[in-house]
Amino acid sequence: MPPDPTTLFTALRSGDRGALARAITLVESRKEQDVSAAQELLALCLPHAGDAHRIGITGIPGVGKSTLIDALGMELIERGAHVAVLAIDPSSDRSGGSILGDKTRMNRLSGSPRAYIRPTPTGGTLGGVARTTQGTIVLCEAAGFDHILVETVGVGQNELAVDRMTDISLLLVVGGTGDELQGIKRGIMEAADVIAVTKADGDALARSRAAVQDLKAALSLLPPRTSGRMADVLSCSAVSGTGIAELLDLLLHHLKADAASGHRAQRRREQQVFWLEHAIAEALQHLFTSDPVVQKARADVQRDVENGALSPFAGAAILVERFRKGGAPPPSA
Amino acid sequence: MPPDPTTLFTALRSGDRGALARAITLVESRKEQDVSAAQELLALCLPHAGDAHRIGITGIPGVGKSTLIDALGMELIERGAHVAVLAIDPSSDRSGGSILGDKTRMNRLSGSPRAYIRPTPTGGTLGGVARTTQGTIVLCEAAGFDHILVETVGVGQNELAVDRMTDISLLLVVGGTGDELQGIKRGIMEAADVIAVTKADGDALARSRAAVQDLKAALSLLPPRTSGRMADVLSCSAVSGTGIAELLDLLLHHLKADAASGHRAQRRREQQVFWLEHAIAEALQHLFTSDPVVQKARADVQRDVENGALSPFAGAAILVERFRKGGAPPPSA
Repeated sequence: MPPDPTTLFTALRSGDRGALARAITLVESRKEQDVSAAQELLALCLPHAGDAHRIGITGIPGVGKSTLIDALGMELIERGAHVAVLAIDPSSDRSGGSILGDKTRMNRLSGSPRAYIRPTPTGGTLGGVARTTQGTIVLCEAAGFDHILVETVGVGQNELAVDRMTDISLLLVVGGTGDELQGIKRGIMEAADVIAVTKADGDALARSRAAVQDLKAALSLLPPRTSGRMADVLSCSAVSGTGIAELLDLLLHHLKADAASGHRAQRRREQQVFWLEHAIAEALQHLFTSDPVVQKARADVQRDVENGALSPFAGAAILVERFRKGGAPPPSA
Repeated sequence: MPPDPTTLFTALRSGDRGALARAITLVESRKEQDVSAAQELLALCLPHAGDAHRIGITGIPGVGKSTLIDALGMELIERGAHVAVLAIDPSSDRSGGSILGDKTRMNRLSGSPRAYIRPTPTGGTLGGVARTTQGTIVLCEAAGFDHILVETVGVGQNELAVDRMTDISLLLVVGGTGDELQGIKRGIMEAADVIAVTKADGDALARSRAAVQDLKAALSLLPPRTSGRMADVLSCSAVSGTGIAELLDLLLHHLKADAASGHRAQRRREQQVFWLEHAIAEALQHLFTSDPVVQKARADVQRDVENGALSPFAGAAILVERFRKGGAPPPSA
């Protein structure tokens, strides 16, 4: 039996941490009896969500994401904020170990009553991860968190999804030469609103400052971003604390300006439409690939297309025509 | 009545230019009686296609694409090649004027018996443009052309499609500052295998050489491309002829190396699978959006999603469930 949505909603709104945790688990569940309860809960929460600043943070493993988030989150809390950290971490599905590791590296934040840290499972499709994460954002906002940090590893496709569900994208890189940008996908760098060179302390200080100049020069030689705004580049150190307040000031400056100008509302509307279309396409693909008529014909068609014996467009026409004639599968029992 | 595919095939193979033109028109047609004739013709041609080098060339209007292609094409012809130029030009749909303009700027190539220049219409979907262009590539190859230059304007999404149907991507840019990269989408620069700074002659010579150094520096500071190969950057002038032979040498070096290593075959297989999946998704979207049940419900759902009253995932579930239950529309008469 799923928990009662109204009871859960009331507890969550009153600040009950356990209720928030159970609500997130409910939204993550794919069990049939949980899905409608989750939708009911989200419908109750939606009117109380949407006012928080949603900040996406990405960077490859080793860049110091958790330590930086700990510092940034504490700076936010000192300024009166309530901070939720949602960590989309593919490795957490395998080992479970990295969650513990993250919590250890976010030791100040994890001990604060004004912070909430939650890993998000990444199993399944991109749409599945987005559905879960966006649902969790809504729950955290309804629970009173006014700053949502969505953290992901800058590999794979999750970080582009994060850009599609947050108001601003922060990319963390290690100072040094171009070699150290190995592992970051170019699309990630393109999407970043702010790039922070981390670990700018001790021996690495001069190198980090040079990296900031190099990155600025490189970005100025690239075509402009869709937004027209050039990405900001700065350096900081979570260990020494240098640049953390400045980084936060910069993020909040953009967030507030975008909220005031209507740019945030516009970005969020576009994000919602993007995910609607993405979810429709994913569901249609699922209907198609699970159709027994399609399954029977697909291997032969794909082989002929790969061999060059059949054009991909003719191949697609054959398969979709069979799907259409065969009709969608009957409703599952 | 569509032309007889076998007759057309025989004429096309014998080097009949008129037959090639009629064959391309047949492949471009969306008339029902033409579609199966076109597929039959393509099936006849496919065993005789695939050996040509396919070169994608992109750049914003004014960069000197046609002039450069004229020079590059003539250099190829002097080395014994047969060159087909397929120009995907959105503006040609509107005015028809740019085709004439292109032909004028390709005046040497358009007068050569070893060259064939053909504009490709861009109306309709991305999949439609890809289907037409890929079909035309197959026809030109079966007609004996061993180098296919696919030209497109570096705006919109067509140039990323070109990257998905050619063996190598050449991006043309004008020498100068970062300002002059305005109008190029970043994704285009990311996809380029070779970047050529054009119009490197006269007063612009020094500036063009500086632009090459700046671009090299910028690219070295970016994350590496998926292929692992760094883009080459060089300058050339179609007017003075400087750098044209070197540009061609470089392109052919990569093309031959990729053909020998199996990288080309792998890239083409992946391209075929990409277009199969793209065409399936496009056809499923078409089935979905033309479903009367979906049409009836969609506006309300989309409005609620944009307002934030409904999650995009719940909205997609509602629409796809109606589509599934309503079933696909009956076969058209």
